[in-house]
Amino acid sequence: MKKISSRDNATFKQLRLVAESSRERRKQGRTVLDGIHLVSAWFERFGPPEALAVSESGVRQAEIRDFLARHPQVDPLVFEDALFDKVSPVATPTGIIALVSIPREQQPILIQASCVLLEAIQDAGNLGSILRSSAAAGIIDIFLGPGCAQAWSPRVLRAAMGAHFSMRIHEHAPLGQIIGEFDGISISTRLDAERSIFELDLTGPVAWLFGNEGGGLTGEISGLALHVARIPMPGKAESLNVAAATSICLFEEVRQKLASRKHDHPASLPA
Amino acid sequence: MKKISSRDNATFKQLRLVAESSRERRKQGRTVLDGIHLVSAWFERFGPPEALAVSESGVRQAEIRDFLARHPQVDPLVFEDALFDKVSPVATPTGIIALVSIPREQQPILIQASCVLLEAIQDAGNLGSILRSSAAAGIIDIFLGPGCAQAWSPRVLRAAMGAHFSMRIHEHAPLGQIIGEFDGISISTRLDAERSIFELDLTGPVAWLFGNEGGGLTGEISGLALHVARIPMPGKAESLNVAAATSICLFEEVRQKLASRKHDHPASLPA
Repeated sequence: MKKISSRDNATFKQLRLVAESSRERRKQGRTVLDGIHLVSAWFERFGPPEALAVSESGVRQAEIRDFLARHPQVDPLVFEDALFDKVSPVATPTGIIALVSIPREQQPILIQASCVLLEAIQDAGNLGSILRSSAAAGIIDIFLGPGCAQAWSPRVLRAAMGAHFSMRIHEHAPLGQIIGEFDGISISTRLDAERSIFELDLTGPVAWLFGNEGGGLTGEISGLALHVARIPMPGKAESLNVAAATSICLFEEVRQKLASRKHDHPASLPA
Repeated sequence: MKKISSRDNATFKQLRLVAESSRERRKQGRTVLDGIHLVSAWFERFGPPEALAVSESGVRQAEIRDFLARHPQVDPLVFEDALFDKVSPVATPTGIIALVSIPREQQPILIQASCVLLEAIQDAGNLGSILRSSAAAGIIDIFLGPGCAQAWSPRVLRAAMGAHFSMRIHEHAPLGQIIGEFDGISISTRLDAERSIFELDLTGPVAWLFGNEGGGLTGEISGLALHVARIPMPGKAESLNVAAATSICLFEEVRQKLASRKHDHPASLPA
């Protein structure tokens, strides 16, 4: 393994640029994955990254050593710890970092399974949490409309804990067109809606729409949804965090689908 | 209104100390509230804060001007903008900040309503989001055991969006004792539990237990719960964010309680 101690190393400079600049990520269509969890998940789905670097102390970590032993075809650069700390976008450097090309998903012609549409979700932590909950709920297609944070930024990747690798993430998606062509019901949530999400039949495909942290969905997008519904809030709070609201809606759908399967096939309960 | 431009001003120094240092907050039992939303909420529940400061540009904001006009008994200090920016813990200063004593809640003798118990929730954003969802679900008592982030830190306050003012937040709570004395069922969530939360009867009082972001609940606390249950995850994700999990559990309880009330009193649907 090649040991690097100079800031003039081309891979070091490239990793640092992409880790620090959202403009550079967009321009190059690349991002960095930090930590063994994300790097392994990438490997399993997409194969070797464009570049891989480990820190000197990272090489001594059991998880990283095992990973490198399982993938002898990969030849990582070894950065001195002080150098590695400068490219790692997290406060506590993880010891392994990869440079990758952001996957570009082809927009599906016809969306028939439940999906999530997001408008202007600006906070990276919220976006990551929404991706994580969506993946857990079995969502495959997630569409990010105008104003959303970069889905593949280091902060979103960290918050999503690998959700990126079990979904198709469509950035810069034409939300209106997708709602129009969706083969199922579409639902936007609003605090003042009359119907509750618990009163809706969620046993078929659902396209869920969630909007900006402060302002919610724009009227233009919200108006395209078939249903407008609220999450009943018996407490005094004025609203929910958008990632919390998404989780509640998606797992109410999970609950209804499990209950209806149980009803249809009492002998074969879902695991 | 008194205009302050010096860093030697005693209130300025005190605000800055409490805003920046968690140690100082703990020692003094004080915190700072940043922004008109939190400051107004404090006022409504507890009355005037110990000190109130606005920035020169803050005084010109309609919301802040209205608030000051409604509370003529309050005499805020006016900080020059550059000075205000130094005490405000947020990136975009809000124009109004208050110094307050953290309320100390007496531990209830007998807890009969649903409540939330947290063990070692370390991330301020997660803790704030849990408080916000809990308040929205109508939870009054929330117990923070060892290892939790400070509930009244500026970051948690910001993420909770005023939830602090409709709940009783018990820090340094003896979780084991509270579970033992709780007059209802207690539930801890675990990924590998056999039963799903959707199979449990949540129409009575529930004490919900949630644990650390990485490690979950310790066996010591988890073992005290009457039920261990999982959130069914049809997707590939390994786990949910703890704030998302909390929201799903609490609003499944809301759903079941609404459904049972509807059943008991079909004429008086909850709003």
